[in-house]
Amino acid sequence: MSEKLGFASDYMEGAHPAIMQKLLETNLNKSAGYGFDEYSESAREKIRKACDEPEADVYFLVGGTQANKTVIDAMLQSYQGVIAADNGHINVHEAGAIENGGHKVMAVPGVNGKVKACDVEKLINDYNNDESCEHMVMPGMVYISHPSEYGTLYSLEELEALSSVCRRNNIPLYLDGARLAYGLACPESDVTLKDIARLCDAFYIGGTKCGALFGEAVVFPKKNTVPHFFSIIKQHGALLAKGRIAGIQFDTMFNDNLYHAIGENGIKTAVKIRRALEENGYNLHFGSPTNQIFVELSNDQKDMLDKAVDMSFWERLSDDRVIVRIATSWATTDEDVDKLINVLISAKK
Amino acid sequence: MSEKLGFASDYMEGAHPAIMQKLLETNLNKSAGYGFDEYSESAREKIRKACDEPEADVYFLVGGTQANKTVIDAMLQSYQGVIAADNGHINVHEAGAIENGGHKVMAVPGVNGKVKACDVEKLINDYNNDESCEHMVMPGMVYISHPSEYGTLYSLEELEALSSVCRRNNIPLYLDGARLAYGLACPESDVTLKDIARLCDAFYIGGTKCGALFGEAVVFPKKNTVPHFFSIIKQHGALLAKGRIAGIQFDTMFNDNLYHAIGENGIKTAVKIRRALEENGYNLHFGSPTNQIFVELSNDQKDMLDKAVDMSFWERLSDDRVIVRIATSWATTDEDVDKLINVLISAKK
Amino acid sequence: MSEKLGFASDYMEGAHPAIMQKLLETNLNKSAGYGFDEYSESAREKIRKACDEPEADVYFLVGGTQANKTVIDAMLQSYQGVIAADNGHINVHEAGAIENGGHKVMAVPGVNGKVKACDVEKLINDYNNDESCEHMVMPGMVYISHPSEYGTLYSLEELEALSSVCRRNNIPLYLDGARLAYGLACPESDVTLKDIARLCDAFYIGGTKCGALFGEAVVFPKKNTVPHFFSIIKQHGALLAKGRIAGIQFDTMFNDNLYHAIGENGIKTAVKIRRALEENGYNLHFGSPTNQIFVELSNDQKDMLDKAVDMSFWERLSDDRVIVRIATSWATTDEDVDKLINVLISAKK
Amino acid sequence: MSEKLGFASDYMEGAHPAIMQKLLETNLNKSAGYGFDEYSESAREKIRKACDEPEADVYFLVGGTQANKTVIDAMLQSYQGVIAADNGHINVHEAGAIENGGHKVMAVPGVNGKVKACDVEKLINDYNNDESCEHMVMPGMVYISHPSEYGTLYSLEELEALSSVCRRNNIPLYLDGARLAYGLACPESDVTLKDIARLCDAFYIGGTKCGALFGEAVVFPKKNTVPHFFSIIKQHGALLAKGRIAGIQFDTMFNDNLYHAIGENGIKTAVKIRRALEENGYNLHFGSPTNQIFVELSNDQKDMLDKAVDMSFWERLSDDRVIVRIATSWATTDEDVDKLINVLISAKK
Repeated sequence: MSEKLGFASDYMEGAHPAIMQKLLETNLNKSAGYGFDEYSESAREKIRKACDEPEADVYFLVGGTQANKTVIDAMLQSYQGVIAADNGHINVHEAGAIENGGHKVMAVPGVNGKVKACDVEKLINDYNNDESCEHMVMPGMVYISHPSEYGTLYSLEELEALSSVCRRNNIPLYLDGARLAYGLACPESDVTLKDIARLCDAFYIGGTKCGALFGEAVVFPKKNTVPHFFSIIKQHGALLAKGRIAGIQFDTMFNDNLYHAIGENGIKTAVKIRRALEENGYNLHFGSPTNQIFVELSNDQKDMLDKAVDMSFWERLSDDRVIVRIATSWATTDEDVDKLINVLISAKK
Repeated sequence: MSEKLGFASDYMEGAHPAIMQKLLETNLNKSAGYGFDEYSESAREKIRKACDEPEADVYFLVGGTQANKTVIDAMLQSYQGVIAADNGHINVHEAGAIENGGHKVMAVPGVNGKVKACDVEKLINDYNNDESCEHMVMPGMVYISHPSEYGTLYSLEELEALSSVCRRNNIPLYLDGARLAYGLACPESDVTLKDIARLCDAFYIGGTKCGALFGEAVVFPKKNTVPHFFSIIKQHGALLAKGRIAGIQFDTMFNDNLYHAIGENGIKTAVKIRRALEENGYNLHFGSPTNQIFVELSNDQKDMLDKAVDMSFWERLSDDRVIVRIATSWATTDEDVDKLINVLISAKK
Repeated sequence: MSEKLGFASDYMEGAHPAIMQKLLETNLNKSAGYGFDEYSESAREKIRKACDEPEADVYFLVGGTQANKTVIDAMLQSYQGVIAADNGHINVHEAGAIENGGHKVMAVPGVNGKVKACDVEKLINDYNNDESCEHMVMPGMVYISHPSEYGTLYSLEELEALSSVCRRNNIPLYLDGARLAYGLACPESDVTLKDIARLCDAFYIGGTKCGALFGEAVVFPKKNTVPHFFSIIKQHGALLAKGRIAGIQFDTMFNDNLYHAIGENGIKTAVKIRRALEENGYNLHFGSPTNQIFVELSNDQKDMLDKAVDMSFWERLSDDRVIVRIATSWATTDEDVDKLINVLISAKK
Repeated sequence: MSEKLGFASDYMEGAHPAIMQKLLETNLNKSAGYGFDEYSESAREKIRKACDEPEADVYFLVGGTQANKTVIDAMLQSYQGVIAADNGHINVHEAGAIENGGHKVMAVPGVNGKVKACDVEKLINDYNNDESCEHMVMPGMVYISHPSEYGTLYSLEELEALSSVCRRNNIPLYLDGARLAYGLACPESDVTLKDIARLCDAFYIGGTKCGALFGEAVVFPKKNTVPHFFSIIKQHGALLAKGRIAGIQFDTMFNDNLYHAIGENGIKTAVKIRRALEENGYNLHFGSPTNQIFVELSNDQKDMLDKAVDMSFWERLSDDRVIVRIATSWATTDEDVDKLINVLISAKK
């Protein structure tokens, strides 16, 4: 096992201890398969309440790419594409999963990972106003991630603007919440889970990166948004036989505000690191307020840090300088944060 | 929670306690994602040894339909189909997952769930001898399940015959081992894991139905059988971010013969139930020697049993009689078996 | 060029002379592309009238497999399959085009090429009554060919029964009319084009095998049955840039009853051959009343005929006997028919 | 019929009279279907000779989108994408046909419609050097059009550079020759058909826009580049039953240098118009030397011209100015060119 400080990602451990505890307690109980168990039903009910959408359809899938591919395939017509930021996960890091399902990702500029309502509206209008639009891919959906791949968050105003463009054009808005816990717990954010449920037509509440062994809760706030979604899940190879394993995890995360607590630890530790970086003259990028910190390093600094810390290389800025990502999570300890800060201070000297 | 005896399926509980224990122990260790962790590597190495294929490529996927869809998509050309029993899982119970990937399931008669080498050979020869074969779907793969959906097993001779037809025709043989533990532990069977690795071109070792929370180990005995299979997994939404969760489970199952012990419990308890059924004059179907028992009941017997036992309805034989399935597993207790036998005896009176 | 009598198929020549004439006359006129030309519009209007469906959507595609694939893809949801005769064209002779589009062909027994309403109803009911139907492919459409691949025709009663099952179950009925001219001109048939338009939800009027250079007219009797079908055609690579070429052909075929005259020549010549075969003791198969004649031959007879006549091998009945197909068409001459009959008589001696 | 001068596109008429003549002459001859006729074989042989590739595989498809979709699907692995200019036909005007086949179009900047070798190399290197490349779409092919959608041509040096990058990286180079006749006949061009056959791994020789009723000749210079391409064509619904109709057309176009003559008329008339435009102070765009002329107009000029000439709107430059496209073809007459020039001169006054 690595002796280095682990800040490479937010999915390096198993699950939050409360989840493990619940899995253990229920381990030998017998239950129905495929999500028809009592734990899954309880989790669905808690999520509906948290979203303030008592009729919402909720499904537990395994991972983010799977959730994106399954939801997008289910909601688009064959001749439609999905609008996303050019640096969005579905456009870059899903090995063509969306295209494999038959759909074009229609890229708009990602501004620190975020899609702007005006860019979406322009793309839709350009399509509608093009005489030969029937020879083109029809925009059929908007995909956003919140937090984005750059850790940034939509403001309520931005989310409302996107929702408004989508609804005016009768196009669903879909939100990828792989790291949603960190977004919801972020003090800078004015967007709640209820806002998301009110403004989006589909979204998923991330488990894998927010303290679960695996699992993402796909929510369609309006009942029967996608008829036969169960068969669509099955057909995508995305149906868990032991659906309870996902159900138990979400049932635990939505108990006693655990999902919020998970997010808070990620945020609290990130804030502390970010402050130390700024105080020591590091240059931060993208303006992420969540659990991902993007810091600019000289090659020498990077070499020095690499010996002590596991981080993610993000991109090269020049021959001399790079951006690396430091990620905190529900599992980040104060002890590790203090050690990291010491290493960062040393690298500045 | 149901007060009834639970014999509806072999995936009603969580995981074998040894697996839960290992997940707990390692829970807060940090590791790399996507299967690049030490647990997954250890599990792969143990599976290679158990298969006697030191160069085998091993990947951990989440579920059976997902494994089938991903492997079949990866191994077929666009114009090829997969030969399977008409009652095979991929032809009936995967909601069209194979066709969704673009491929025809080419059905041959399933004899108690098994595919006969002669039927495969005939289908291939008919294709080759047809003047207009280029207008038809080319047979590109043979899919079998072992144990089959009817709990039956291929003999070594049958498996060798299938392998031989496939290799003569340069078509891969793929074995779905969703319940492989119960097949390997069955005293009637002369087929070992090494035989499967020697005779098949791809197969998966089932976890979900054999004591894991989830997970199937896809094995390609020959290295690089499918180039870029990692990207193919990702593209199918089948890549686990926390790959370690699957790795830890298989690492545990392939430790100290646990996978065999899991199978043995399923077999031992099934044998006991089967013997009681026969002694009490019940009619058994399909000749399954593994952990699935198919028993014929009158409507009255079914009604009586339904009050005390969770079983699976299988098919209706006539207005008066049905077949139901009783499934045992790694988790079946002797106590429950004895209670079940008592209920079965009562229903005969 | 072959000196033999040509009865191998109904697509061995170019186009009916009236079509060639019209193509020549209009050749240097300029017109809009993609079917927005005046010829295509005129053809659409004539077809609407012939169908007695003034609001019908009509599109001109190039070939039969293309029409089937495009229409079926357009009308099915991803989790649905299409019911067809096991010996139907889409199930056997389209190289997996339907599965390539993601859909299972759900085979029911083809009785002389025809699908029975009761078999369709049973399949649908079996699906609806299966507890695990959400794990299965949902029947989403019925495909029939008229005339069938065996030259047989649905009676009006049979077509009404199929339509009735489909409408009760809210499933579209789609008719492949590759050889429709020969069906409509057949005196035994009580099914008119208007009946087809009234009873089916989609169908195509065959051009390629009925006297055109190429082309099939896809008809949706109810307007906007498939929104954005133009984009779907384009996406399938099925959109003709010079759409007029198809339009001119159908405009000519639906002028002055030419489509009927084309069918009549195929039928008249087939009747004459069929009568000669029967009078000379040949055994006919499948009961085709249209332009395809299926005749049983001994190996010796086949060898003898092969020297003088191009026919299609259909299937082997035994070591000694085969079935061959003799096809007439709009282009079959009385002279060739008389020569063929002489050859057939000689082979019987 | 429009009374206006027709310069809207190069596919507004039927076919070159020599083609119509040949179709008429052969109309009642009988031949085998699916391209196994003597005309198709003769055309293939002539194309092989013109390409100086005696072993080339040649197939006749119907249209450009169909050819692109079929070839690209056939040559890419599922996890691969095709590199193309961002303004390339497959990225913009094929209604998502490539994505419908499961593949991402990987856009690089189109410089006047052309792809630069250095951009291709950078994209491939970026992929190869990315640590997480297995999570990304692998570049698997390069698509170029020659002439491009902007009428521009690759120089031999540019084509050699692209070919060289592709071969170094073991990625096929595919050329869309929808308007190839106009490229080959262009005096500015130093690229011959033999060069294309030598430097590309697949390409198609355009018929539809170069004087045929329809039809594109797909050429794989190296024999068996794509095994079972016939079945792939069939599966895409792209197989012509009367393959001879395409064969006869290409057999005629590759007779007596007709394909060259067709191109020359397009070029000669375009040169004349272009010169008149320049002499009269019009601003030309994109530097097209072929049969497409892109001219900048004020709104007033456009309104004036629209009354007399059918042109294509291309794009808006500002509130006041637009670019329109004037296209010539094999069918453009000197008389029409003179009339057009007069109109253009008037609009400048």
